[in-house]
Amino acid sequence: MTTRVVLATRNAGKVAELQRILAPYGVELLGLDDVAPYEPGPETEPTFAGNALGKAREAVRHTGLPAVADDSGVAVDALNGMPGVLSARWAGRQGDDRANLDLLLGQLADVPEERLGARFVCAAAAVLPDGQQVVVEGVLEGRLVREPRGTNGFGYDPVFVPAGQQRTTAELSAQEKDEISHRGQAFRALAPQLMAALSPKG
Amino acid sequence: MTTRVVLATRNAGKVAELQRILAPYGVELLGLDDVAPYEPGPETEPTFAGNALGKAREAVRHTGLPAVADDSGVAVDALNGMPGVLSARWAGRQGDDRANLDLLLGQLADVPEERLGARFVCAAAAVLPDGQQVVVEGVLEGRLVREPRGTNGFGYDPVFVPAGQQRTTAELSAQEKDEISHRGQAFRALAPQLMAALSPKG
Repeated sequence: MTTRVVLATRNAGKVAELQRILAPYGVELLGLDDVAPYEPGPETEPTFAGNALGKAREAVRHTGLPAVADDSGVAVDALNGMPGVLSARWAGRQGDDRANLDLLLGQLADVPEERLGARFVCAAAAVLPDGQQVVVEGVLEGRLVREPRGTNGFGYDPVFVPAGQQRTTAELSAQEKDEISHRGQAFRALAPQLMAALSPKG
Repeated sequence: MTTRVVLATRNAGKVAELQRILAPYGVELLGLDDVAPYEPGPETEPTFAGNALGKAREAVRHTGLPAVADDSGVAVDALNGMPGVLSARWAGRQGDDRANLDLLLGQLADVPEERLGARFVCAAAAVLPDGQQVVVEGVLEGRLVREPRGTNGFGYDPVFVPAGQQRTTAELSAQEKDEISHRGQAFRALAPQLMAALSPKG
């Protein structure tokens, strides 16, 4: 048996990732466009957790269904933890992966190697129509490289090398990435709590 | 009597500002191109003070003259204090004021008003051929506005409003700006120390 849950994102890369990650838990993810096309408000919170909760709450409000959402980004040492919550609009407009990545590399051109440490962070939130909510965070430590490599994934994957790895996250297979990724960690922690909250009370 | 000091910058806006600020102290500023055209190395330090000292040391090495340098930038609350030392190359390449400013406004488009707090920071350094060095910092607190205003100054001046003011620093006259600016504060603190260090010992 599967449980229908709305995923509050229009990012196709995230939808594909989360469908893979949540399938084993019996969660059937519905895209926003499947249930209630609405224009999501801007993400204005200073934290990943705040934005993830905000997006999930908004989806519940519009659909009446249980909703999950994530807010993710890359936090770079040399940029005091930015792009952070602005990762998806780092180049000034929403969702232009290539422009965001090119800008980041340009900003870091003169930054010494030892300050290219970075981490992928994901906050995963679930909100139920009855008002229950939970949010968890996953982190993948690593470092940036100056030359993009690989074609899997999306966003900053081509320039991010996880700690202890040689390949970028865009050079990992989907399965390899899910096992270690910030989003994999966060949603595997979230899923059991979501399913428990959704199961009929005894 | 004036003392000849090299100013380690190629930024024409900074040269004009610092000539105004230092003239009363009897300092005659020479531009880099006047004394020894060399290609300044990249600014790779994580702090304004580190970069200012590095630029002044480099100028002494190339010219044998006393040198002053500054490193300045804008630190924005919503960006964890960035652009910071990357202010001049925020859009990915050095010195494109308009691109830097447009990018910053794009990044902050969805950021609420209360996190548009910002400060201009300037580290001013002096280095003498005998190895003496001093570095001081000046700060101008304020906030960003979303619509550029004014044509004076340079860099982020059109979107920065000092605390207690209504006008941007690009709407202030040169004299008004010098009186309160981060650069004015820093170089007025630096100048007496520089002159004392340069004066013949008794």
